[in-house]
Amino acid sequence: MSTQTSAKPFHRILLTGAAGGLGKILRDKLKDWTDILRVSDLADLGPARNGEEVVQCDLADKAAVLELVKGVELILHFGGISVEASFEDIMRANIQGTYNIYEAAHTHQVKRVIFASSNHTIGFYKTTDQLTASMPPRPDGMYGVSKCFGESLSRYYYDRTGLETVCVRIGSAFPAPANRRMMTTYLSYDDLFELLRCAAFTPRVGHTIVFGASDNREKWWDNREAAHLGFQPKDSSSQFAHLFPDTGNYPAADEIGSTYQGGNFILSGPQYKN
Amino acid sequence: MSTQTSAKPFHRILLTGAAGGLGKILRDKLKDWTDILRVSDLADLGPARNGEEVVQCDLADKAAVLELVKGVELILHFGGISVEASFEDIMRANIQGTYNIYEAAHTHQVKRVIFASSNHTIGFYKTTDQLTASMPPRPDGMYGVSKCFGESLSRYYYDRTGLETVCVRIGSAFPAPANRRMMTTYLSYDDLFELLRCAAFTPRVGHTIVFGASDNREKWWDNREAAHLGFQPKDSSSQFAHLFPDTGNYPAADEIGSTYQGGNFILSGPQYKN
Amino acid sequence: MSTQTSAKPFHRILLTGAAGGLGKILRDKLKDWTDILRVSDLADLGPARNGEEVVQCDLADKAAVLELVKGVELILHFGGISVEASFEDIMRANIQGTYNIYEAAHTHQVKRVIFASSNHTIGFYKTTDQLTASMPPRPDGMYGVSKCFGESLSRYYYDRTGLETVCVRIGSAFPAPANRRMMTTYLSYDDLFELLRCAAFTPRVGHTIVFGASDNREKWWDNREAAHLGFQPKDSSSQFAHLFPDTGNYPAADEIGSTYQGGNFILSGPQYKN
Amino acid sequence: MSTQTSAKPFHRILLTGAAGGLGKILRDKLKDWTDILRVSDLADLGPARNGEEVVQCDLADKAAVLELVKGVELILHFGGISVEASFEDIMRANIQGTYNIYEAAHTHQVKRVIFASSNHTIGFYKTTDQLTASMPPRPDGMYGVSKCFGESLSRYYYDRTGLETVCVRIGSAFPAPANRRMMTTYLSYDDLFELLRCAAFTPRVGHTIVFGASDNREKWWDNREAAHLGFQPKDSSSQFAHLFPDTGNYPAADEIGSTYQGGNFILSGPQYKN
Amino acid sequence: MSTQTSAKPFHRILLTGAAGGLGKILRDKLKDWTDILRVSDLADLGPARNGEEVVQCDLADKAAVLELVKGVELILHFGGISVEASFEDIMRANIQGTYNIYEAAHTHQVKRVIFASSNHTIGFYKTTDQLTASMPPRPDGMYGVSKCFGESLSRYYYDRTGLETVCVRIGSAFPAPANRRMMTTYLSYDDLFELLRCAAFTPRVGHTIVFGASDNREKWWDNREAAHLGFQPKDSSSQFAHLFPDTGNYPAADEIGSTYQGGNFILSGPQYKN
Amino acid sequence: MSTQTSAKPFHRILLTGAAGGLGKILRDKLKDWTDILRVSDLADLGPARNGEEVVQCDLADKAAVLELVKGVELILHFGGISVEASFEDIMRANIQGTYNIYEAAHTHQVKRVIFASSNHTIGFYKTTDQLTASMPPRPDGMYGVSKCFGESLSRYYYDRTGLETVCVRIGSAFPAPANRRMMTTYLSYDDLFELLRCAAFTPRVGHTIVFGASDNREKWWDNREAAHLGFQPKDSSSQFAHLFPDTGNYPAADEIGSTYQGGNFILSGPQYKN
Repeated sequence: MSTQTSAKPFHRILLTGAAGGLGKILRDKLKDWTDILRVSDLADLGPARNGEEVVQCDLADKAAVLELVKGVELILHFGGISVEASFEDIMRANIQGTYNIYEAAHTHQVKRVIFASSNHTIGFYKTTDQLTASMPPRPDGMYGVSKCFGESLSRYYYDRTGLETVCVRIGSAFPAPANRRMMTTYLSYDDLFELLRCAAFTPRVGHTIVFGASDNREKWWDNREAAHLGFQPKDSSSQFAHLFPDTGNYPAADEIGSTYQGGNFILSGPQYKN
Repeated sequence: MSTQTSAKPFHRILLTGAAGGLGKILRDKLKDWTDILRVSDLADLGPARNGEEVVQCDLADKAAVLELVKGVELILHFGGISVEASFEDIMRANIQGTYNIYEAAHTHQVKRVIFASSNHTIGFYKTTDQLTASMPPRPDGMYGVSKCFGESLSRYYYDRTGLETVCVRIGSAFPAPANRRMMTTYLSYDDLFELLRCAAFTPRVGHTIVFGASDNREKWWDNREAAHLGFQPKDSSSQFAHLFPDTGNYPAADEIGSTYQGGNFILSGPQYKN
Repeated sequence: MSTQTSAKPFHRILLTGAAGGLGKILRDKLKDWTDILRVSDLADLGPARNGEEVVQCDLADKAAVLELVKGVELILHFGGISVEASFEDIMRANIQGTYNIYEAAHTHQVKRVIFASSNHTIGFYKTTDQLTASMPPRPDGMYGVSKCFGESLSRYYYDRTGLETVCVRIGSAFPAPANRRMMTTYLSYDDLFELLRCAAFTPRVGHTIVFGASDNREKWWDNREAAHLGFQPKDSSSQFAHLFPDTGNYPAADEIGSTYQGGNFILSGPQYKN
Repeated sequence: MSTQTSAKPFHRILLTGAAGGLGKILRDKLKDWTDILRVSDLADLGPARNGEEVVQCDLADKAAVLELVKGVELILHFGGISVEASFEDIMRANIQGTYNIYEAAHTHQVKRVIFASSNHTIGFYKTTDQLTASMPPRPDGMYGVSKCFGESLSRYYYDRTGLETVCVRIGSAFPAPANRRMMTTYLSYDDLFELLRCAAFTPRVGHTIVFGASDNREKWWDNREAAHLGFQPKDSSSQFAHLFPDTGNYPAADEIGSTYQGGNFILSGPQYKN
Repeated sequence: MSTQTSAKPFHRILLTGAAGGLGKILRDKLKDWTDILRVSDLADLGPARNGEEVVQCDLADKAAVLELVKGVELILHFGGISVEASFEDIMRANIQGTYNIYEAAHTHQVKRVIFASSNHTIGFYKTTDQLTASMPPRPDGMYGVSKCFGESLSRYYYDRTGLETVCVRIGSAFPAPANRRMMTTYLSYDDLFELLRCAAFTPRVGHTIVFGASDNREKWWDNREAAHLGFQPKDSSSQFAHLFPDTGNYPAADEIGSTYQGGNFILSGPQYKN
Repeated sequence: MSTQTSAKPFHRILLTGAAGGLGKILRDKLKDWTDILRVSDLADLGPARNGEEVVQCDLADKAAVLELVKGVELILHFGGISVEASFEDIMRANIQGTYNIYEAAHTHQVKRVIFASSNHTIGFYKTTDQLTASMPPRPDGMYGVSKCFGESLSRYYYDRTGLETVCVRIGSAFPAPANRRMMTTYLSYDDLFELLRCAAFTPRVGHTIVFGASDNREKWWDNREAAHLGFQPKDSSSQFAHLFPDTGNYPAADEIGSTYQGGNFILSGPQYKN
């Protein structure tokens, strides 16, 4: 429970993966929410900044994670591998690692986890399909499979122990869309942060899966099942429309990339080079 | 049928419950719609104002209600008990009373009733559930059960006689949200009135159930099944967000209140004090 | 809790409406389930038979019902009015009466109620519609509206207090179908009794609504949502097919009767003679 | 494939029905998309304008259509009869004609067709129904039946040959709503054009059915299944609300027109004058 | 209306396509239903048998069809082309022909049509898909497209005029399955006839689409939406299992045939020889 | 591809987990399907029997599994841990092990895997819930979570490589139900074997999830989405009804066991002893 005398809503939040692409950005933004932000990564995080605790930690190390989570009220679990990699690496970081986080969270009675899931849990749906969160997963690689694992695992912990989780199936959280597909999957940093805010502060979330996309014109994902979170994206990829002018030259050279929601990611597995 | 020579769309509208919280507000606003506004309540309504007919009436009195409804084209049925009370009181006012209204409306060939139903017809759904109007009711008290009765009864009258009804499952229609839960259920007076306008003037409504909430950020209720009404709320509880600052201190002290959509109302039954 | 030393599964069961059409039949059959069968009706039930307690009781009398329910483990609530009648009579017997039963059941910590609901809760669906239990009610008269009330009320008691109910939407429980429509709605006495057995002895029922029909060839009702009850009807109206030979003389003289699932019952309301 | 050295997205687009109501409007607007706009109609189209090829052509003439489609990358198929007419005329123009277009498109390896379907494919739904594109068709006349044919045919061509189609179920594309019903079905010319733009330039559309209506307040049609097109109407019939002031004089004189989504069109068949 | 003094349920039934494969079989069986069986075909039907009227008739001849239908109470419309053929032939026989039947049926106030539709209306679904009748059609050839037309057309006639239709999507009605696929689609003659009996004699059918398959072990089609017909197949393809012994040699040589529900039929279009 | 000259449908099948409870039973039965049955387990399997190849193998050993799968046409993957255990053990055996199987299967171009999944993928649904295979998983322990992983992984391999899988969510495959709950989840050995037969020999299965239960009276699982497999259980737990006589003594002592579909298994996790 947060300290009542504090002006900030939380006393201590843990951010894993703080040295990663999104982790770096969140590291700055989360300070308003918490007296102490504990940041963690396998990589070097530099010295602790004001209001921070820095813990270098391998998520696959169960004992270290148990220690890492101690005293924490909320976890933003952005750690692990966020690209396609060998299964063994992914299993160690994303499967063992996420298990360790949840087991430690339960042990220390953490109230809630915000889990950085991914659109790659559903990347093998077609770009003409419309999805809701309760549709069966169709991962597009080992990375996506590991995120499906995290969604199942967190469902279990909620059902068994009451530990709440919001699984955020992050789209393409970059400064700008890097290709035509990302016009649909783009998630601005501001909208990501607003979604995390909703996930952190909605009084009750149970186990909720939410898609993370800005208010882009083209949509594949319908967040109606997560409307209780109150997430209302403000940005749109439309501001980048000039980068991808209308063309009749379809199907594009990246035909597979325009066929499946996961885009060319579906081709990135280590085994299948075609 | 309205008088063609009148500049107002209706000749005579009946508003029951005109001395109640919402009734008082509607009493002023409805005058633009009708040459004559007949207002009724069990309580004293004061003298008739310009363009009004005042009828003090016990809705449980069948003969009185038959008289009350005579000459009316549209009924806004806001009468009865709107809080949890003994079953016997609720049965008299809300069950016998609503039956009397419908039987009289049929007898006098009233075209349409707008029935003040309530979110307490579905108050035992979880705050992480998303509802549409056709999902089974889950009332949270005798008051809610009586509103379920009104919804069933009006469905019957439409199927049997063609008498149209819009059941408005009113959320929290107050000047401002009184607690965190009402950030989701808030219905501004202006939005309530706009919803009643849609219910009154859409050319055909059949038997429609619609949820009454402003365009609040967090949503539990999806009005897609009533999109033919064209209700578009303009207000949002966001303007009151400062009253309920973000906090990680969940589950709140009113744990049950944050678990069920009905909030603490689910605890208000006369029998179950725990 | 039942007495462990008894060879019968229950110590005391209450059957309301024991003088009614179905009540009489059940009165004989229930004895195998219980040491003591308490039978009740507004009408005279004759002397107590072996293993019986006879209580003449007006269900609208709250105090009497509170006494009636004392010491009971299971209630089969078949009491009240089972035909179309004046609203006031139905309200007294079926609305006030059913409320009294539930309030008393809660007070005395009865574990479960089997509520005799009716196909007339959904009688205004077309005979070409296929229903599941979670579809919105469309009652076909005041009797049906009162059964919708019982279904809402029992849902509330389950959500609020844990008192379990199986609502049995009884079709046409007669020795044989009396008209062509009943070839679809027929429920043999044996199948009714088997359905009650499932409702009584399934370890957990929560709040379940189940349609009561034999395994007739033509079906309007799909019991998939109640498959946990394990009800498997053994009989079929096919044995009576010779009573209603194939004919091309449609629509039948009773055109409305063949249009709506409720059959001619939809015309039986006291107010609408056409 | 479009010519890469061209500044326009397409080299040659075919617009059929270019002399029709919507065809005339599109004829001007499409020039920005294509080096050459081939316009076609049974009626006289006047001389070719700058960047145009004019082909007078009977769509029922298979050989002529095969020639018409040659060298084309995209077809906007607006040709045929767009009002109720004799079945034979409709069959010739809309059934034989549309078949000819698709067979020619396949032969010449056209990539995509935008098919002008109609709300009259679903005109026999009630005005209180809410539709998605995958609900069964309920046409309201021979014209609507012919559009259902086009939707089935184009589905076949996509499944069999990969030829993509967007079926646009156009609402009421006029300068302004001509009656109260069109407040719901209104599609401004700008919104129509934007919808066609989405249909033409979305990288992958497969076989998509989309409803064509502006962002009118009252809605019958939910485009969630076509959200990948990114169509966001900008206009609303609300600007014409003053033409149809609120009235309690319902049901309107055109009772059937307010009952079915197809409006009075359902009465326009040549056979059924009542 | 049938003659009351007749012992048979109908006075006169029309069977079109009586010289076709199924037509020949039905010709014998239908005599028990009707005083007079009018049989029709484009081909020679031989002399009239006892209780028959023989009419050689081109269904594309509107005037002839109008005459053909006169005096008829029920039509079993099995006429037209039942294999893949040129579009023009199919249009003439199946589109113009079916229109002529319905227009004549309406003119002569026929009560009901049983329309021989086909599984080829949905042949492009995968063999791992499970279908209900309300799912969108996916025809697998011009023949299938023409049957989709018949389903839309008959829906229109029901909505507009009340003329009832049962569309029977016939599977593989042969003496025995001719290939492995037909183990799923097999419809025995007895089951076909029983299905037609249900379609003919159910008191009210509105517009019903039903799949025609025996009670085969493997199923793609779920008839739950037509349960009011009471069709219960008695036969199963299991009796022919020895013809297609279990094999691991999959995917079979006819890979496409095992991928789509339409089997190799999807390859039979005149245009696409691959 | 199987050897055409063999009388058996397969040349070589791999059964993993052949020393386990079900593995032992399958070892005998599978010989009719295959010239060579390769059996594998971590435990000792005894000497190879006639027609067998015995391979002792740790599924977590990637190289060993690659060798194990060589030359195989079909895999029945019953290996791994089938009870609740430490996460690390389960991860090694069920997550790494199953990955190894699939990667090897892909490498060696195995056509199909039958994956022994479990009802514990959905054990946290209530015993009053009715499930279809596409509903979101709700595992009841680490064992269940690992089976969810296998279902996601196999979906990926099908989407990416075409390797087919049938996931069999095995209920309670024992000689007889061991407690009241198993009256619903019981799967006789004969029915299990028949289900495996369907999974092995259906010409095309894609990625199918099927529940494995006999035709027990009480049902929680609806296999409609797998009806293409043609699985028709022959046995029923009803033959064991005498072991669990009807009782009104509910909720049973094992209250949680009767609340959740997973029964007391939900309590078996190593961490949560309450």
